[in-house]
Amino acid sequence: MNFETMMNLFSRRGILFPSSEIYDNHPSGFWDYGPYGAAIKRKLTELWRSDVVKRTGMLEIDGSICMDADVFRASGHLESFADPLVECVKCGSIFRADKLIEEVSKEKAPEGMAPEKFDSLISKYGVKCQSCKSPLGKTRKFNMMFRVSVGASKPQDAYLRPETCQSIFADFPRLMKVMKKSLPVGIAQVGKSFRNEISPRNAVIRAREFTQAEAEIFFDPGKPGVEKFKDMENYRLNLKSAKDRADYAPVTAKEAVNKKMMSEFAAYYLSVMQQFLVKCGLPAEKIRNRQLDGEERAFYAKESWDTEVKTSLGWVEIVANNNRTDYDMSAHGKISGKDVSVVSAETNEKFVPHIWEISMGMDRLFYCVMESSYKKEGERAYLSLPSYIAPYHVAVFPLVNKDGLPGKGAEVAAVLSSAGFDTDSETKDSIGKRYARADEIGIPFCITVDNETMSDNAVTIRHRDTKNQERVKINELACKLRELMD
Amino acid sequence: MNFETMMNLFSRRGILFPSSEIYDNHPSGFWDYGPYGAAIKRKLTELWRSDVVKRTGMLEIDGSICMDADVFRASGHLESFADPLVECVKCGSIFRADKLIEEVSKEKAPEGMAPEKFDSLISKYGVKCQSCKSPLGKTRKFNMMFRVSVGASKPQDAYLRPETCQSIFADFPRLMKVMKKSLPVGIAQVGKSFRNEISPRNAVIRAREFTQAEAEIFFDPGKPGVEKFKDMENYRLNLKSAKDRADYAPVTAKEAVNKKMMSEFAAYYLSVMQQFLVKCGLPAEKIRNRQLDGEERAFYAKESWDTEVKTSLGWVEIVANNNRTDYDMSAHGKISGKDVSVVSAETNEKFVPHIWEISMGMDRLFYCVMESSYKKEGERAYLSLPSYIAPYHVAVFPLVNKDGLPGKGAEVAAVLSSAGFDTDSETKDSIGKRYARADEIGIPFCITVDNETMSDNAVTIRHRDTKNQERVKINELACKLRELMD
Repeated sequence: MNFETMMNLFSRRGILFPSSEIYDNHPSGFWDYGPYGAAIKRKLTELWRSDVVKRTGMLEIDGSICMDADVFRASGHLESFADPLVECVKCGSIFRADKLIEEVSKEKAPEGMAPEKFDSLISKYGVKCQSCKSPLGKTRKFNMMFRVSVGASKPQDAYLRPETCQSIFADFPRLMKVMKKSLPVGIAQVGKSFRNEISPRNAVIRAREFTQAEAEIFFDPGKPGVEKFKDMENYRLNLKSAKDRADYAPVTAKEAVNKKMMSEFAAYYLSVMQQFLVKCGLPAEKIRNRQLDGEERAFYAKESWDTEVKTSLGWVEIVANNNRTDYDMSAHGKISGKDVSVVSAETNEKFVPHIWEISMGMDRLFYCVMESSYKKEGERAYLSLPSYIAPYHVAVFPLVNKDGLPGKGAEVAAVLSSAGFDTDSETKDSIGKRYARADEIGIPFCITVDNETMSDNAVTIRHRDTKNQERVKINELACKLRELMD
Repeated sequence: MNFETMMNLFSRRGILFPSSEIYDNHPSGFWDYGPYGAAIKRKLTELWRSDVVKRTGMLEIDGSICMDADVFRASGHLESFADPLVECVKCGSIFRADKLIEEVSKEKAPEGMAPEKFDSLISKYGVKCQSCKSPLGKTRKFNMMFRVSVGASKPQDAYLRPETCQSIFADFPRLMKVMKKSLPVGIAQVGKSFRNEISPRNAVIRAREFTQAEAEIFFDPGKPGVEKFKDMENYRLNLKSAKDRADYAPVTAKEAVNKKMMSEFAAYYLSVMQQFLVKCGLPAEKIRNRQLDGEERAFYAKESWDTEVKTSLGWVEIVANNNRTDYDMSAHGKISGKDVSVVSAETNEKFVPHIWEISMGMDRLFYCVMESSYKKEGERAYLSLPSYIAPYHVAVFPLVNKDGLPGKGAEVAAVLSSAGFDTDSETKDSIGKRYARADEIGIPFCITVDNETMSDNAVTIRHRDTKNQERVKINELACKLRELMD
């Protein structure tokens, strides 16, 4: 289904909509999740916690969003997390100088060039404003971090973290000291990050405030094996190579390592993540792990795979998997002046741990799961979400809003709630309209309470995906639903 | 237990510690939760979700932290969320002008005074720097919101919300349109808020970045009753009156309403919240609901109760309960120019909804629960957390790190994990030290795997609160633990 259809659904059902939207001039790139959207996003997060964090034995922290400027001096964001911008002197349109030069010259501008270099290339190629063809001003570097001023007396610069992993790096020395763990140790975090995108677009696909679920596995580069590798060795990975850009037939994690297509870390954690994504409801054939070649990789990364999902907007990156080497911890050690090394259990020598990173965008995952599960059958539209991802497990509908049915419906809803089901109930509009609304937000089962219920103590279960209906006794309902969901 | 003991525990076990702490000059008022702290805070949040949000049928949203400046023009924060500050011309110490004048003159400075008025009072009373007795500079207003600049081309001011409720107010018109609900409707949210406190102190009690769990119940002022009131009418509230400042003997919610001590809204939601706090592990006798009199109440509030918890730092406010009238929605309607009214189901007339607010500080709740559950018995210290709040339900300890016990321990841990228990396991140090560590973070049950386990397939359960031990067959362990936790 296409992006516009999804945005229309999100807006119409209050699933996701612009933040501060009652103010006409609200800044773009900020989004609020309404009740159904918030529930789905929360359930995706819970699944990540159980199937990635707990499953692989990671620790999970919850760090502050606003961090010391020195953190980003060390990480390189203060210096390098910046785009070269040019503004039209006449109409004020703003462009990325590197992209503009690339389009006109068909040559890729090298990364990290000084602003004056961009100015001379703009002049060399006669690049003009793309909107009004007027001349462009001087190139300037625009840092994409949000800066805040902290304190009243001697205000101090701090930044909203542009990636949650920086909390993990900064906290690693204390956690290593107090947690009685040996390497490899995974530390995970889910939380907000902020980037002052020049052109936020495609809703939560490129927003200025977004949720990341990141995991950093700290390891000894001398021992690059994964103890639990055998758990995943037969899992079939969808891969796309960097070299020939070809899709491979799915290979098992074990084969991928044996054929030297990737490291054991990559094979294990790509498998864990691909399995998690499939459990979120994404079909395996819409998922691929694309290897990044030298040009695409961050300069410090030794091995990089982007996990991408096929959508109407093309392939969308939802997980970045990187061997970040000792880049992060060495940089934080150097700028903080603190000892960030660990002692090898075998050789007793100190070393700075290397890091395997699994960085997932929760909002992108949300969008991909929603779009992928959207099904249209004639007039009927429904989300085929797995029951553990749906905003409610079940909705209870009294057939009519009289004859004691609402009271009976409330009873049934109370029984289901206390049996642990997330239960919605609605009495407004015809039963057909209520089924349609429940379908659209992916509720897998609707329970209808009708006049017969009052005498036979039975209700009708209506299945979202098939529209099939069956009659079930109220005292067998919870068991029946549990069976259907398993 | 006192604050220092708690901070020492937090730091030593990585439960809670300063953000960016490896950088010596990190800004104060920002805190990171390590694995145990994050787990406990998350479980408190889940309990709030089940026992407050779902129980009372509220909707829950997840809104953006960064919001349009106009939101705070409407809310009054841009104009009024500011403290009058004076700085010593010599030593640079900074003070709140109103507090300083109050101390010297013993008179309360009226709220919202212009800076020049403060200057003349400072001169009238001869107020000097409290640190070095030098003269003070001019008074200035210091706004406590964090401002960020959004976008590259025409940068636009936005603010980090100082309270999560502003997302709820801004989203209310859309939610009312799409959610098919009738008033009263409760909308809840848990998320980060930011305030640029001049003197952050007492760790998360007064931090600059913190988590709020807020609920706003929108209602028709012509129908101020609560449908589910009878569910709570016999619940006994701990009250403290504003008038005579006396503690009352606990009265039931029903009596409190009948005696006109409070509205039905207050009685119902104070009861729901007090019951929730008790379930978090706070003893009822450490909780009081203190009525605020005219001077203490926000100018727009019609009825206000602070729910406070007794700690070593004195009574700490953890929930603010307010009838905010139509102040918020009228202000947002006026500044946005949008229609924020709803139509009465009875009279068909439009009106702006009134709001009952329940605003809880999650970090303060965390601190109070931790301090209150801290027990010291001789050398032994433990947290008497309820099992559903503890960071793990159970810890599995192989008695020694040999003879196949670690493998057996891992098996037992896997069984318990798949039965739904949050399970920790540790092999380092003596069993006594491991018990002590588990006690300190509140794990209710430790399972010891010893050499006999290999032959009799039984393990020892050790109870945190009593130190009692009992032998249980592994295949009965999950049932036994479930029984102990109920």
